[in-house]
Amino acid sequence: MSNFYTDNEDLQYYFREAIDWKSLIRTTEFEREGSDSDEAVAEAVETYQDMLTMIGKFASDEIASRASRIDRGEISVSDGEVSVPKELDEIFEQLKALDLHWMCIPRELGGMNVPLLVYFMTAEVFARADVSVMTHHSFHGGMALAMLAYSIKEGTTTFDFDKREITGTRFADFIEEIGNGEAWGTMDITEPDAGSDMAALRTSAEQDASGNWLVTGQKIFITSGHGKYHFVIARTEKSDGDDPFAGLAGLSFFLVPAYEDLPDGTRKHLASVDRVEEKLGHHGSVTASISFDRTPAMLIGNRGEGFKYMLTLMNNARLGVGFESIGLCEAAARLAREYAQQRPSMGKTIDQHEMIADYLDEMESDIQGLRALAITAAIDEETATKLSLMLEAAPEGANRVGELDLDALRKRVRNLKARARKLTPLLKYSAAERAVAHARRCVQIHGGNGYTKEYGAEKLLRDALVLPIYEGTSQIQSLMAMKDALNAVIANPQEFVRGVAQARWRTMSARDPLERRVARLELAELETIQLMMRKTATDKLKLLKGVPMQRWGTTFLKDWNPKRDFAFAMLHAERLTLIMTDVAISKILLSQAKEHDERRAVLDRYLDRAEPRVRSLKDEISTRGLRILEQLSRNSTPDTSAEEAAKPTAEAAQ
Amino acid sequence: MSNFYTDNEDLQYYFREAIDWKSLIRTTEFEREGSDSDEAVAEAVETYQDMLTMIGKFASDEIASRASRIDRGEISVSDGEVSVPKELDEIFEQLKALDLHWMCIPRELGGMNVPLLVYFMTAEVFARADVSVMTHHSFHGGMALAMLAYSIKEGTTTFDFDKREITGTRFADFIEEIGNGEAWGTMDITEPDAGSDMAALRTSAEQDASGNWLVTGQKIFITSGHGKYHFVIARTEKSDGDDPFAGLAGLSFFLVPAYEDLPDGTRKHLASVDRVEEKLGHHGSVTASISFDRTPAMLIGNRGEGFKYMLTLMNNARLGVGFESIGLCEAAARLAREYAQQRPSMGKTIDQHEMIADYLDEMESDIQGLRALAITAAIDEETATKLSLMLEAAPEGANRVGELDLDALRKRVRNLKARARKLTPLLKYSAAERAVAHARRCVQIHGGNGYTKEYGAEKLLRDALVLPIYEGTSQIQSLMAMKDALNAVIANPQEFVRGVAQARWRTMSARDPLERRVARLELAELETIQLMMRKTATDKLKLLKGVPMQRWGTTFLKDWNPKRDFAFAMLHAERLTLIMTDVAISKILLSQAKEHDERRAVLDRYLDRAEPRVRSLKDEISTRGLRILEQLSRNSTPDTSAEEAAKPTAEAAQ
Repeated sequence: MSNFYTDNEDLQYYFREAIDWKSLIRTTEFEREGSDSDEAVAEAVETYQDMLTMIGKFASDEIASRASRIDRGEISVSDGEVSVPKELDEIFEQLKALDLHWMCIPRELGGMNVPLLVYFMTAEVFARADVSVMTHHSFHGGMALAMLAYSIKEGTTTFDFDKREITGTRFADFIEEIGNGEAWGTMDITEPDAGSDMAALRTSAEQDASGNWLVTGQKIFITSGHGKYHFVIARTEKSDGDDPFAGLAGLSFFLVPAYEDLPDGTRKHLASVDRVEEKLGHHGSVTASISFDRTPAMLIGNRGEGFKYMLTLMNNARLGVGFESIGLCEAAARLAREYAQQRPSMGKTIDQHEMIADYLDEMESDIQGLRALAITAAIDEETATKLSLMLEAAPEGANRVGELDLDALRKRVRNLKARARKLTPLLKYSAAERAVAHARRCVQIHGGNGYTKEYGAEKLLRDALVLPIYEGTSQIQSLMAMKDALNAVIANPQEFVRGVAQARWRTMSARDPLERRVARLELAELETIQLMMRKTATDKLKLLKGVPMQRWGTTFLKDWNPKRDFAFAMLHAERLTLIMTDVAISKILLSQAKEHDERRAVLDRYLDRAEPRVRSLKDEISTRGLRILEQLSRNSTPDTSAEEAAKPTAEAAQ
Repeated sequence: MSNFYTDNEDLQYYFREAIDWKSLIRTTEFEREGSDSDEAVAEAVETYQDMLTMIGKFASDEIASRASRIDRGEISVSDGEVSVPKELDEIFEQLKALDLHWMCIPRELGGMNVPLLVYFMTAEVFARADVSVMTHHSFHGGMALAMLAYSIKEGTTTFDFDKREITGTRFADFIEEIGNGEAWGTMDITEPDAGSDMAALRTSAEQDASGNWLVTGQKIFITSGHGKYHFVIARTEKSDGDDPFAGLAGLSFFLVPAYEDLPDGTRKHLASVDRVEEKLGHHGSVTASISFDRTPAMLIGNRGEGFKYMLTLMNNARLGVGFESIGLCEAAARLAREYAQQRPSMGKTIDQHEMIADYLDEMESDIQGLRALAITAAIDEETATKLSLMLEAAPEGANRVGELDLDALRKRVRNLKARARKLTPLLKYSAAERAVAHARRCVQIHGGNGYTKEYGAEKLLRDALVLPIYEGTSQIQSLMAMKDALNAVIANPQEFVRGVAQARWRTMSARDPLERRVARLELAELETIQLMMRKTATDKLKLLKGVPMQRWGTTFLKDWNPKRDFAFAMLHAERLTLIMTDVAISKILLSQAKEHDERRAVLDRYLDRAEPRVRSLKDEISTRGLRILEQLSRNSTPDTSAEEAAKPTAEAAQ
């Protein structure tokens, strides 16, 4: 049988050449002195390598081999008990036996303390075998880590900071249960009338006379929602109907066990699974509706901090979908190439036909680009998260601890967080959209065979179609990316102007032609943002007349009305996101090309498609959209504009 | 309940304003004197209008209402008998009772002699309700007409030419059976190892001692393949292994009944349905494999004319898929808009969010453009086919019959055929691709709900995905469109140069700004073709140096090697096809805009998207592709290039 890790050269390039393991291991060891010694690092990396090799084989032999049966199997619910295809149970029995859920959990809690990046690589490899299995897997170890992270954040985890060791944590028992594969966690956010719109959530929580919290309400589209430990966002404070910010401020965060196993071997349900969705694909993953009716709940953090807690790990969930999407792209590209290499037509195999060759090349180049983006974003996010949790645990008010300069670390965290925040929606958007495109290409390359259930191509497409929807739709991702980009200009126009000048200078001065090409792309991005700023504020142009760009910020922010002023940018958010993605990927590939000569061809191939794409997107942003906006402004009544002000924040959620 | 015809304003615009009924009816009446009198036309049009109104209601009340059950129903085969969901049988019982299969069959044979265009409109309306039901429906009346057309072509239909009446036809009994809804026909082309590649067909036919033909072989992916009357393409002449053209020349065309109903009420199978495909969607349409084992067959035309006969009606089948695709687009756009209009988010319904508004607007504009293309192509094809069948029936050698100038008609047929041949692959390609895109948009607009089976969006996408595959894949359509365009330049470079000059002149001189915009698009198309000609013949550039464009044709055709010389154009065939589609649609919409003021907004809206799209496609063709071609030419061995020469013809097939 094959091995989904060792047969993947690009993935191994990262493992062997591109990842700064020393730094990542030091972070994962909470900056403990000596944790990044050459010996320790070499030993750890060898372990990771062994793990991934085992995982690559497991993905192929145990998951991929069952994927089609899982796809055809049935998920049903009866009396609140969910049953899944037996193949799924078999896989999870094996994962449990392999102790794989312990992978990233800290050693003090019984885990292996492996960097999350290795988990993300595992996720990609699993997803190539079956995305829905990967998804269900992610609700195990990932949720155990979430319990730890939330506990650190709320201050209920104790540390021996000198040893950098956890001495106790609030949810230790649950973490152990999950590590042992006896339970898993879920994230319960969406409700029937609140998808992307968090302020509309209605599930509520109240305290009984003894101060115990009880949650009541219905949550839908809960992935792996038949699990035990539910993170639930619920309303605890009355909201003022006129102000949607109050809607967000009134939310709190809870951990709610959905059942309890009694000593007599029976199970007591505290919440009920009302239904499971019958979905187009992703059939190894349960999507449940769950009702809480005065179900006992543990408040996490303070009242009203629900939205904040939910956001804490949201980037990780989205990175996970990024890796999941890449795994699916990889499966589609490989299935397509294998078929094309053996299918004869007109005297040669179809992979030698120009159009098909172009498709296959595009898929393979896309994957390299997306993986570069994913791994960069994941390292940034992991490093930022781990360091910031460590800083929460650090002695209060300290600027230094021993050799450790906490202030410098705080600055580093800020920078890393900013980059992760920038790259994550680009990844979620682009990887999910490409997964759908690749799977569709794979179907099409299979011709009539692709439309039948026999060849596996249509399954990939059915599975892929959830990726641009869950964990925040593509539309939400692009709005976030756009708003961050434009707000950054408003916040610091000087820096933006400097960036434009630098990019322009590099387009002319860089000695490396690849660097000049990347600089030209970057310049196109910045010019597009500039253009959007200008068009965005059509009715503010008068104000800006004669005002130097450096002072746009203050001029703009006067009487700022997000609805009216952002409309043009919202219309073009997806196009800007695509440009930003191409630029971000090209910059990462350029830095690889500078280090490793063999990556020059990777960048060259990526630019080959990115260049006309960026030109075209910029052209469309420059020339289209006013007709639609006029139409919309004719429809809208002025009094809705205030609510729109909530968008930048509320949309961040789903 | 709603009515899928009367609620469709754009479709009614054609019916009421844009269609030249007088001309179409005259053609449908075989140019019979007086057949286009004002009274006769008015009466006929009123009948068609009544029919479409009835059909619109039928589509909504009887088809759409059963579509989800048909989708969930099962098609199975046991002992050669295929069973389908009972809802499908119910619909076809009703269609039979309505005598709808008789719609376009000539009166002399018992039909209503309605123009095929009305059938195509019916097809769109049915497809909006369920594409698979529309498809199965099309294998009834359409196949009866095919029987007549083939018989006229081979000379086994007799005419009273003065009265323009059919006095007898070879397959009259079968036509009656189909008209009565007791049987239907199928087109059996594809084989396990021959999809787009017709020369690879292996099913064979031979004559027994008495000269009766017997067909042996397996055909796959036969739509409605459990039917009675099979048009089968089979090899009758040995092919010379070295020359694929011989492969096409060795094919003959047969009509093969798959069973016979015996007087005792039992059914005798002459061919066997081996299996039915389990497909992603399109569940009301049976896709069967069928085996012939020395099955009695009727030869149509002469030995070796199989490919020619197959091509005869191929355009019609592709037009049918065009209308089918538009019906699906219409369903997706409407479902998406309805959902968006009632789904609130962030204080307004999501149809008022910029991005969603832009999607909905694009879908609606696409549909208007595609319908303009479809109806134009259908009228051209119908007129050309009917006139050319009439000309086949005309007294041999005559140039005039009464008032009828046959030479002028022949010229008209040539022109119409040429335009239909040009527009049909553009329609098949674009409508099918847009159907997939629209259905995917519809899923995405539904968010999580779109991924469940409950809202109908995912069914549309599953159904849509066959459209770019069957009746010739998108790739084959685009290769045909590209080759026709380039060959036209080679055949008549002077005319091409004149076309460029005229388009350029119109970009400057036209008084109507819309006309200038359309001329600019056209110029971009021609410049792209020019560029492709130039790049296509990279290694011939030397030959062309100093040769005026007018003499390119002869210079080019020396030592022409389609493989090497067309490679660049093949790589970019889809992009050229998209440009040609936008130009063709814009030109049709422009001619409408000149007639009807209210169509100016339709064109303006279409151009809004077509302009940046064409610029971007032209840019990509100008700047990309050499890397892939170099890669391919490194892989290929010189001796395969001869086989490639067969492509322009062989690909026309599927």
